[in-house]
Amino acid sequence: MPRTSINGKVNLAVDLGDPFLNHVVDGFFKIGAVAVGKVAVEETYHVVARGSVSKKNFEHSLKKMCKEGAYWGAVAGLYVGMEYGVERVRGTRDWKNAMVGGALTGALVSAVGNNNRDKIVLDAITGGAVATAAEFISYLT
Amino acid sequence: MPRTSINGKVNLAVDLGDPFLNHVVDGFFKIGAVAVGKVAVEETYHVVARGSVSKKNFEHSLKKMCKEGAYWGAVAGLYVGMEYGVERVRGTRDWKNAMVGGALTGALVSAVGNNNRDKIVLDAITGGAVATAAEFISYLT
Repeated sequence: MPRTSINGKVNLAVDLGDPFLNHVVDGFFKIGAVAVGKVAVEETYHVVARGSVSKKNFEHSLKKMCKEGAYWGAVAGLYVGMEYGVERVRGTRDWKNAMVGGALTGALVSAVGNNNRDKIVLDAITGGAVATAAEFISYLT
Repeated sequence: MPRTSINGKVNLAVDLGDPFLNHVVDGFFKIGAVAVGKVAVEETYHVVARGSVSKKNFEHSLKKMCKEGAYWGAVAGLYVGMEYGVERVRGTRDWKNAMVGGALTGALVSAVGNNNRDKIVLDAITGGAVATAAEFISYLT
């Protein structure tokens, strides 16, 4: 059952009765929360740098938090689902799952945003490389 | 001792006698190799899409592999070193190390490339968020 815990204080548990879906939902909420936090810190910095806060800016910040949170969450959920799917198909756990999952995610995210075939392939390659790099770094640290 | 192994076939072991330096060097070579592979696949796709390969293009590809490999490697080495340093200072291992390490890396990489103070802070925030997200995903998968 996915338990999304931010700093051990806020807990959210969703059980959809299927490990695949649970993984995806967990990825969505965890990484979405990271993106929301990122935008919150960014906007706070803008306010500090500007020295003033208006209602309009606040509404803009809130909207940006929702948008970026949903976007990062969707990409992360897609990636986690892809990696899980690749693992099930291949039957093993190694960095190649991350590479294939990252490439599929990159291709899908790119295909949603644009219709240029070359760009989709290049985004798939970049997605695979970034996921592989992140996987290697998680072994290192 | 860092052992950089790509697909279990190529092995490279460098020992600098210090765990901190070993981590950094290992990060540099592993992620550098991923970036070199990424550019190689990208350029192969360009060749296939174009249907021809010339000496000039080949030289360009080789240069791009070296450049991107060194860049990704340097960023990864910096990040791994930062996270290791933060772990030593804090004395614990959790996602906050990734966040602080990512933020420091983002700030440094940004500071090397430009002089805009705002941009450096925002890059630090993004670096921290990306590192935190990658850390969460490595727990999930």
